[in-house]
Amino acid sequence: MTIGALRERMAELSDLSALSRLAAWDQRTMMPPAGGPGRSDQLATLERLAHERATGDEVGGWLEALESEPLEGIDAEIVRIARRDFDRARRVPGELAAEIERASSDGETVWQAAREANDFAALAPALRRNLELAREHAACFDGFARPYDALLADYDFGLTAARVQAVFGELAGPLASLVAEASSGAAAAPVPPVAAQQAAVPAVLARIGADEEGWRIDVSAHPFSVGVGSRDSRVTTRYEESDLLSVIAALHEFGHALYERQIAPELARTNLGTGTSMSVHESQSKLWENHVARHPAFATVIAEALTAGGFPGDPVALHTSLVAVRPSLIRVSADPVSYPLHIVLRFELELALVEGGLEVPDDASGVLQDTHWAAGAFGYFPSYALGCLIAAQLWEALERDLGPQDEGLARADVAAIRGWLAERVHRHGRRLDTEPLVEHATGRGMEAAPFLRHARSLVGAR
Amino acid sequence: MTIGALRERMAELSDLSALSRLAAWDQRTMMPPAGGPGRSDQLATLERLAHERATGDEVGGWLEALESEPLEGIDAEIVRIARRDFDRARRVPGELAAEIERASSDGETVWQAAREANDFAALAPALRRNLELAREHAACFDGFARPYDALLADYDFGLTAARVQAVFGELAGPLASLVAEASSGAAAAPVPPVAAQQAAVPAVLARIGADEEGWRIDVSAHPFSVGVGSRDSRVTTRYEESDLLSVIAALHEFGHALYERQIAPELARTNLGTGTSMSVHESQSKLWENHVARHPAFATVIAEALTAGGFPGDPVALHTSLVAVRPSLIRVSADPVSYPLHIVLRFELELALVEGGLEVPDDASGVLQDTHWAAGAFGYFPSYALGCLIAAQLWEALERDLGPQDEGLARADVAAIRGWLAERVHRHGRRLDTEPLVEHATGRGMEAAPFLRHARSLVGAR
Repeated sequence: MTIGALRERMAELSDLSALSRLAAWDQRTMMPPAGGPGRSDQLATLERLAHERATGDEVGGWLEALESEPLEGIDAEIVRIARRDFDRARRVPGELAAEIERASSDGETVWQAAREANDFAALAPALRRNLELAREHAACFDGFARPYDALLADYDFGLTAARVQAVFGELAGPLASLVAEASSGAAAAPVPPVAAQQAAVPAVLARIGADEEGWRIDVSAHPFSVGVGSRDSRVTTRYEESDLLSVIAALHEFGHALYERQIAPELARTNLGTGTSMSVHESQSKLWENHVARHPAFATVIAEALTAGGFPGDPVALHTSLVAVRPSLIRVSADPVSYPLHIVLRFELELALVEGGLEVPDDASGVLQDTHWAAGAFGYFPSYALGCLIAAQLWEALERDLGPQDEGLARADVAAIRGWLAERVHRHGRRLDTEPLVEHATGRGMEAAPFLRHARSLVGAR
Repeated sequence: MTIGALRERMAELSDLSALSRLAAWDQRTMMPPAGGPGRSDQLATLERLAHERATGDEVGGWLEALESEPLEGIDAEIVRIARRDFDRARRVPGELAAEIERASSDGETVWQAAREANDFAALAPALRRNLELAREHAACFDGFARPYDALLADYDFGLTAARVQAVFGELAGPLASLVAEASSGAAAAPVPPVAAQQAAVPAVLARIGADEEGWRIDVSAHPFSVGVGSRDSRVTTRYEESDLLSVIAALHEFGHALYERQIAPELARTNLGTGTSMSVHESQSKLWENHVARHPAFATVIAEALTAGGFPGDPVALHTSLVAVRPSLIRVSADPVSYPLHIVLRFELELALVEGGLEVPDDASGVLQDTHWAAGAFGYFPSYALGCLIAAQLWEALERDLGPQDEGLARADVAAIRGWLAERVHRHGRRLDTEPLVEHATGRGMEAAPFLRHARSLVGAR
């Protein structure tokens, strides 16, 4: 009976979390601007209530009772992960959790205005407040070698700053050389006008399976995706005259959304029914961004969609443009080769901010470009680069198992890719943590070499 | 301190209710169809949680403690209304509440199929079940003169069947004569094409204050409105080639939304911070529908917006068409004069069904058109007609105070109307029940005479 009570509570928490995602999606795509303060209250209430329901004494009682029962299969996994989450959540006082949520939501509102006004000073107080709260948050835990690890565990349980530094260490030197070597001024292909991009994005997503029955595509300043329910997937993108970000971002977000959609149905509305970590999540978006959208064969699919949208697309020029190495100050429009270097930088900065006493500067070129610190998310950035690395590692394993995908990709036939990902990665939900999942899927721990091989091939392909 | 705990709980319930409205809005305007089952889970979880948090023993404890404290002003009102809501909610056993919820949801599903098949017999068992449950529900309460009054209190606290019968008694005879007299086949004006309506609706709403900073206008099968927060108001409408419903519905929903928006800010996130009753809410929508949108002077504003949208609008023809009396079997497309007669009929029927032993008949022309009884909502209908009456009464009082509004309405200048409504009606939130509010605003109890005068003027204006 006790497992029934625990499962019911997990279903409730899963629903509250879905409502949180819906409210956040709405805030960034639909909400009239004046709704901001009210939305902050609503999100804070959801967060506080979820925290209370996740950490109630009754949950502790159920767990204790269940830990002495001979459970098997999913039930045993539900209890194992529930215990981990319960212990972590109990260490954060409800008031601190609510305050973090409120500061995050407020910070995001402030960030939007500050970014528009190019005014870092307007953001600084919110940033400072978020940092204080992050340090308080880290101080709630013990059993971690250092404060940053305690924060990282919220995004990638089991990873440590030391492990990230080791992997980034393999990466940074060779990648920086590669970028320096490769950065030559390849002529940029003409960029399709916004109208053609607006026609192409839904057309390309529809061909790889994002039908109107279960998907939405909207516009937001910062592209993102949510699964509001397992059959309600929403991606956003943004359209600019100056680059083809729209298609790339849409494929990226499609990868995130597909992950949530392909989790085993029996994990739905349990605590196992979401992606396992930020890094693995990001590996799914990066797989579709780097290894599908930027694949030379898939350029045909994009070109066809642009042509139908009124812009005669040339696959070869398109692909050349999509993989050109053009170092930029802006992370989200960085080229696929230099991209991880943006992250290594942010990782080192946030490590110093959280642990090293680095003060929030009065000004910083480019700090307004990302919402993460404004929203209090310290420990989140590494996943962006780890995602690139894991994606490359998964893609090598996938092609080892299935053979080269060129033919299918040229026809937008991604059934085999979807199937492989479902089997090796998606269906497990939270049953496997980041590094065990990578080992399960590829036979090896996380490593930088596959990404470096991929980057070299892009540079060579120019 | 206890008042702090109570206020905090009320704020939480207010936020949960806002999230419920957001999720329902999304379901009807944005959600991919496949999201339906997941959304039902999410809404059921919110409902269950809100009920639990509203009826917990701790709430009873706070109320008892507070009732012996010398509270003043808003705090005293918060406690008074919280006690009323708490006692009403606690009197309904959880199992009965769940059964009512289930029967309502089942009934609605059955109704949709029955309506499509035009098959009343298919609905009859669900209707019978809803009626049994409504009688059981009514029996939970004492202190009411009759069972119907106990149900009515959920929609319009303080009103009674006897009072409704008295007011409808003044109305029905004269109105029926007026309709019989007036029904002549006035030629319908040509209806603007959908494109012109789509341009006109936001233009008209913008002119009366629905700016993009705090409002959204979307499309849904059945027009509705929600206030997600006090500065986040959303109305929907629908567009048809065959009539000008779109503009009328948008103004109607604007009235509902404006009510929620103009409640005194100090009542926000308390249990007093919403509209006081179904009748008063409906009076606000009907005021903007009948007395603004159908005002001869405002026809100029609508005509200008249609003209800008590419359909040369003629104010006189437009107004004639908007007030023409054309009796119909369908309530929602009834003209503004005969509309309340649809409601008087339904009220007498549901009163007899709940109390009089009237059996659910084997067949009934038109009963399938409305979802209310199928969903178990007995006691809801009167508010539709009372709303018309109260709107007319308020409008007379408003013009008595401010003078005729013709000049302002021709220029879409509604500042004085908004201000008067804010002061006399909106700002009070739930502090005044239906009839006390009407007395406060107009100096008299509810009465039918002002609506009859209004109806005569419409008929005379043809």
